[in-house]
Amino acid sequence: MTQTAYEPRTVPLPPDPRAHLTSPVTRSVLLVQNEITAAAREYLAGEGFVELLPPIIGPVTDPGARGAKQVDIDYYGHKYKLMTSAILYKQASLLAFDKIFYIAPNVRLEPLETASTARHLAEFHQIDVEVAHASREEILDVAQGLVSHIVRRVAAQRSAELSFLGRDPRAFQPLLDGPFGRMTHHQAAADLDALGHEQSPDAEIDWVAERLLSAQHERPFFITDYPKGSRGFYDKENPDRPGTLRNFDLIAPEGYGELCSGSERESDYRQIVARIRETGENPQKYGWYLDLVRAGIKSSAGFGIGLERLTRYVAGLEAVWQANAYPKLPGVVSP
Amino acid sequence: MTQTAYEPRTVPLPPDPRAHLTSPVTRSVLLVQNEITAAAREYLAGEGFVELLPPIIGPVTDPGARGAKQVDIDYYGHKYKLMTSAILYKQASLLAFDKIFYIAPNVRLEPLETASTARHLAEFHQIDVEVAHASREEILDVAQGLVSHIVRRVAAQRSAELSFLGRDPRAFQPLLDGPFGRMTHHQAAADLDALGHEQSPDAEIDWVAERLLSAQHERPFFITDYPKGSRGFYDKENPDRPGTLRNFDLIAPEGYGELCSGSERESDYRQIVARIRETGENPQKYGWYLDLVRAGIKSSAGFGIGLERLTRYVAGLEAVWQANAYPKLPGVVSP
Repeated sequence: MTQTAYEPRTVPLPPDPRAHLTSPVTRSVLLVQNEITAAAREYLAGEGFVELLPPIIGPVTDPGARGAKQVDIDYYGHKYKLMTSAILYKQASLLAFDKIFYIAPNVRLEPLETASTARHLAEFHQIDVEVAHASREEILDVAQGLVSHIVRRVAAQRSAELSFLGRDPRAFQPLLDGPFGRMTHHQAAADLDALGHEQSPDAEIDWVAERLLSAQHERPFFITDYPKGSRGFYDKENPDRPGTLRNFDLIAPEGYGELCSGSERESDYRQIVARIRETGENPQKYGWYLDLVRAGIKSSAGFGIGLERLTRYVAGLEAVWQANAYPKLPGVVSP
Repeated sequence: MTQTAYEPRTVPLPPDPRAHLTSPVTRSVLLVQNEITAAAREYLAGEGFVELLPPIIGPVTDPGARGAKQVDIDYYGHKYKLMTSAILYKQASLLAFDKIFYIAPNVRLEPLETASTARHLAEFHQIDVEVAHASREEILDVAQGLVSHIVRRVAAQRSAELSFLGRDPRAFQPLLDGPFGRMTHHQAAADLDALGHEQSPDAEIDWVAERLLSAQHERPFFITDYPKGSRGFYDKENPDRPGTLRNFDLIAPEGYGELCSGSERESDYRQIVARIRETGENPQKYGWYLDLVRAGIKSSAGFGIGLERLTRYVAGLEAVWQANAYPKLPGVVSP
C-alpha cells in the first residue's frame, strides 16, 4: 500500500470526514490507538486499578487548563460545565477505591491560534489515573510502567500498522531498555538557556521550548517540580520548598513534546481554599467538591495522559488530529 | 457485611456523594459494572469489532430521544450539541471499519417527572454497536450473544458482589439456557390488552406497559417492528409493511424493562431526507451527516445498550442511579 490520496507529511489540516475515515492511514492509526487503550486497561487492571466511567458534565470542573476556555451548559436552569479534566472526580472516587482510572473525554476551547500547532484538539481524551496515599515518586513509577507497557505491546501487536505508517520500531528501543530520564524544572530551564532559548525558572515551559527539549532526548523523560503559578490548585506545594509543586510532566522524545501531566495532590481543606483564592477564583463555586474535602478526602497522586498525543508519538504522526476519528481543531466547524 | 447505613430497597433517591461513594453497595455495583464493560469488550473484540472513542460534542445529534431535550453549547460562536446518542457517528464510522462499537457517554435532559421513575439518568452510557451490511435479524443475534456473554461472565467472576447485593444467580438461568424471546410490537400490544392495559398498536409502549410485559417474562425478550412515528429517522422502514420499522427493543425480565434499542438503518439519502422532513425537522441542520450520506454510506444495523440499565438488571438494583458513581437525576443538582 502506498499513501497516495493522503499524505500526512504534507497535509497539516484534516481532510473532509469521508477522506479522513476511509484513509488507510486513519485506519492504521485507530487500530494503534485501540491497542493503546487495550494495553492501558491490561496494565492497570493487573496493578489492581478499577476503571470507572467519568462524568462529562458537572457544576464545576478543573480550572487549570492553561489558556483554554471552559464550555458552559444550561442544566435545568443551573450553570454546568463540560469537563476540562476529571481531576475533581478522581480525588472524590478514591473514597470508593484506592486505585482508579478513567479513559475520559475532555473539552477545552483552546485559543484559535492553537489550531495549527499540530498538538491541540478542542475535544480529546485522557488516560486518567489516581492512587490514594501515593507519593510523587510512586506515581512517576506508575506512569513509567504504564507507558512502557503500552509501547511494548503496540510494537509487538501492531507492527504491520506501525510499518505502514512509516514508524521505525527502533525508535522505541531506548524507552524499552531503561528508565525514563528525570530532571527538575530548574534544570530544564538551565538546559534551555544553554540551548539559546530564554526560559524563566519561575514560569511554565512554552511549546517551542518543550519541543526543543524533547528533540534532545531519545527516550521519554520527566520534568518535575514546576513553579507554583503555572498549574492548578490541586498540585501539592512542596512544604520544604515553598513556591515549588510536587508535580511533573512526562515529555516524549524526538520532538513530540508533552504526553502527560500529574502530581501529588493537595488534600487539606484549608490549603485548597487558600490555593483557589490565590488563583483569583471564588472557592464557593467548588460547592460539592469543597464539601467533600472539608469532611476529609484521601491524600493521593495521579496523572492524565493525553491519549491522542500518546497515539501521535507511538504512531509517529505529523499532527495530533490524525489520532482522532472526528478531529475538532480549535475554532474549526467539523463533525 | 450487612447493609446498615445504606439500604437501597428503602432509599429511592441518591444520598450525598460521600455516602454514595463509600457505600459497600456502590463499590459492589461498580465492580459488577466494571466486569460488564470488560465482558462487552472481550466479546466484541472476539467477534472482530474495533472499539472507537465517540465524540461528546458536535454540530448535530440524534433527535430521536423521546421527550428529552438536547443540550446546546457555544463552540467558538457556533451552536453545537452534546451527544444524546452516537448514532450519526456510528453510521459514519463504518466508512473506516465494518464492525465498530463505542462505550459512549450521552446527555439527555429528560422531563423532571422522570427523576422518580428509577430508570432515568440525565447523564448515562451506552454500549453502542454498529455492523455494516447487517440485517435486523443478524443484529438481534449480536445483541443476544453480547448480553448472554456479559451475564455469564459477571455471574462467574462477580458472584461475591452479586451475593452481597442480594442478587440470586438462579435468576439468570433461563437467559443462559436458551434464546431470547421475540415478539412483534403488534403482539406486545395484544398481550397488553389481554393484561388489561390499553395499548395502541400504532404507538410507543410506555414505561408502565413495558414493566408490565417485562414482569411476565423470566428471560430477556425482543419486541420488534415498532410503528414509524415512535422512533428516529434512521430506523429503516419495512418496504413490505409501510409504517412499520425494522427495529427492536430488548426488554429485561422481572420488571426491569428496556435494556437496549436498535434497528436496521436507513442509508438512502432521499429516504433519510424524507424521514427527517416527516418529523418536522429541517434537513439542513444535519449538514456534515447528509453530505456524507449523499455521497454514499454503508447499509447497517446496530443498537445501543443502556449500560446503567444493564447494570441495574444484572446487579438486581432498585434504581438505575445506583449504577453510576456520580448519578445525575433529571433536574437535581449534584456532582
